[in-house]
Amino acid sequence: MPTSTASQRRAVAKAEYDAFLVACPSRQLLERISDKWVALVLAALGGDGPRPGAASGDEPRPMRFSELSRRISGVSQKMLTQTLRSLERDGMVTRTVTPTVPVTVTYELTGLGRSLQGVMRGIKEWAEGHMEEVLTHRDDYDHRQSDAAD
Amino acid sequence: MPTSTASQRRAVAKAEYDAFLVACPSRQLLERISDKWVALVLAALGGDGPRPGAASGDEPRPMRFSELSRRISGVSQKMLTQTLRSLERDGMVTRTVTPTVPVTVTYELTGLGRSLQGVMRGIKEWAEGHMEEVLTHRDDYDHRQSDAAD
Repeated sequence: MPTSTASQRRAVAKAEYDAFLVACPSRQLLERISDKWVALVLAALGGDGPRPGAASGDEPRPMRFSELSRRISGVSQKMLTQTLRSLERDGMVTRTVTPTVPVTVTYELTGLGRSLQGVMRGIKEWAEGHMEEVLTHRDDYDHRQSDAAD
Repeated sequence: MPTSTASQRRAVAKAEYDAFLVACPSRQLLERISDKWVALVLAALGGDGPRPGAASGDEPRPMRFSELSRRISGVSQKMLTQTLRSLERDGMVTRTVTPTVPVTVTYELTGLGRSLQGVMRGIKEWAEGHMEEVLTHRDDYDHRQSDAAD
């Protein structure tokens, strides 16, 4: 349908895959990408956030495993390896081995990965930008709960 | 700073909270909201996706527990209860009890919840819209792995 609009095509795509349905493959994909490590790896490879000594900006760039590991504090080697492998398998990250001594392995976003990163960036920024508001709500909620228990 | 722009304020907020840091509260918030059940509950309350017998549209509306449970196939009572309670505590959902017989309990997005839903909607739609592409990449990856094992 060369004359179909983007919204028509999206409507077709949404009619085919529906993550509300437990048996739909998109449910499992939603589960896989709704993950803080995925959000953080994509953000790091996408150049998000303040980098020490770097001009602010959103330039995606290849990174080595050790760089990613330092950027995302608290991630275990195992979790980072699993996350990168799953992103590579799903076509969002390419892994490049350069035959230096020792070999250099770098990871980089693909076009598909950049497309997902454009979406996931919003979640990380939302968490950072609404933290105060959420903390206030939690305090209120907890006070109401303890008042009700008196 | 009454003359600060939104981007300046956002830069301040981002400097205060940084989800790349394991000890930052926004890391834990990112973990909580990066969750398929959160995405699906927000999408349901936000009126996302095709609804049987409804005109397409994105009108948020209050829903009862049983409605949510039917809309999000495969969710357990326990998981839906936990997700709703956590969203209520964080200020994204209000729970309203109407004293009918039996009582009617409805859930509804707050302004904060609608703001997060605007972001999370993108993830669900991304999963639904890029499913084919991801499946193709997985096939390629798995073939390369088995070729390499030959």
